[in-house]
Amino acid sequence: MTARPLSDTDRTRHRRLRAQGGTDRAELDAILAAGFLCHLGVLVDGSVLVIPTVYGSTGTDLYLHGSVASRSLIASPNSTVCVTITHIDGLVLARSVFEHGVNYRSAMIFGTPRPVDDPDEKLEGLRCLTEQSAPGQWEYARRPNRRELAATALLDLSLDEASVKIRTGPPDDGDGPDAALGLWAGVLPLHTGWGAPQPDPALPADIAAPPHIATRSGAPTA
Amino acid sequence: MTARPLSDTDRTRHRRLRAQGGTDRAELDAILAAGFLCHLGVLVDGSVLVIPTVYGSTGTDLYLHGSVASRSLIASPNSTVCVTITHIDGLVLARSVFEHGVNYRSAMIFGTPRPVDDPDEKLEGLRCLTEQSAPGQWEYARRPNRRELAATALLDLSLDEASVKIRTGPPDDGDGPDAALGLWAGVLPLHTGWGAPQPDPALPADIAAPPHIATRSGAPTA
Repeated sequence: MTARPLSDTDRTRHRRLRAQGGTDRAELDAILAAGFLCHLGVLVDGSVLVIPTVYGSTGTDLYLHGSVASRSLIASPNSTVCVTITHIDGLVLARSVFEHGVNYRSAMIFGTPRPVDDPDEKLEGLRCLTEQSAPGQWEYARRPNRRELAATALLDLSLDEASVKIRTGPPDDGDGPDAALGLWAGVLPLHTGWGAPQPDPALPADIAAPPHIATRSGAPTA
Repeated sequence: MTARPLSDTDRTRHRRLRAQGGTDRAELDAILAAGFLCHLGVLVDGSVLVIPTVYGSTGTDLYLHGSVASRSLIASPNSTVCVTITHIDGLVLARSVFEHGVNYRSAMIFGTPRPVDDPDEKLEGLRCLTEQSAPGQWEYARRPNRRELAATALLDLSLDEASVKIRTGPPDDGDGPDAALGLWAGVLPLHTGWGAPQPDPALPADIAAPPHIATRSGAPTA
């Protein structure tokens, strides 16, 4: 990959994980654990589609799901897809526009998804997907019945081929000639966090949000 | 597009903007204005790549940029790309796992990017890109010089072919049989906002963050 995601600097680390070291693997795991949204790139009828979708990570595989009628889900098992997960941590505001950039953590996973048909594995995959974004909900909510399972397509994508890119830290022009300009430079951090749960208006007033939902309010997501 | 991004419900609106109405156009503009990060899907040597990158919107076009050495940027003008912008507004926590979903606003733009070579248009595109994420910085920071301009590839992607998907509101199973389960249901909102500016450690202590940066702290981004 020589693709340039967001900024190229000395601090940008870009490593293929095909022959991964422990550190890179840990970075990949941390990026996956910090989110639940990915962008799935797949070729459908000769056109690239980039589809936002949720994922669940087992540590060795990603699960993706969707309607059995979804064109992108149907096309995915026949071709190599690219799944990208990106967390934005802040804007890098340098002295020069050229050195502006973004602090971020990003993972790209390449592979040919395997459709999951076995009902037990399908349930396990949906548990993984549910718990990725909403820990505790698999135990709390009503689980999928046979009809719902049949209506859901599940894909398994191995994490064997993945790369990680991370940029952290201040701008890179603090020791160059632009430092003499006397301009402010630094990072404007971006924070993401959960708000207070909003009850469904159809909900009876005596049903309170359970602790696994109520306690997330105010917590950062990534 | 019959792709299923995040959830399919009665409230999901999905409209092609090729023959757009005023409302759809306004929705697209609002989604673009609320962010600065997109995921660019492009075919490189037969493989789909999904690359996180920043954008600038003029209202009729998107500008994307990168290193002139970037494979994805070089490949893009030769093929149809898909650019997707996604804002996550919250988790939809229903009574059943099957009805779980995400509240989100998403735009997909399809087209064949045009490389921008004219120096004046290149500067205008970089101004647009800079101001998208960091309003005020084009006036404040040092602008690109001739060498920096030459090292930067700029692409222009028309917004003519785009689609928008939005999901809002509570879960959809409040009036079905699952309502009798007595489970809490609702939305867990996700908020994104700017933190306090972090000065570059190399910065002299007497240089304060200018108002266009300092005043963003605490403000939501989308």
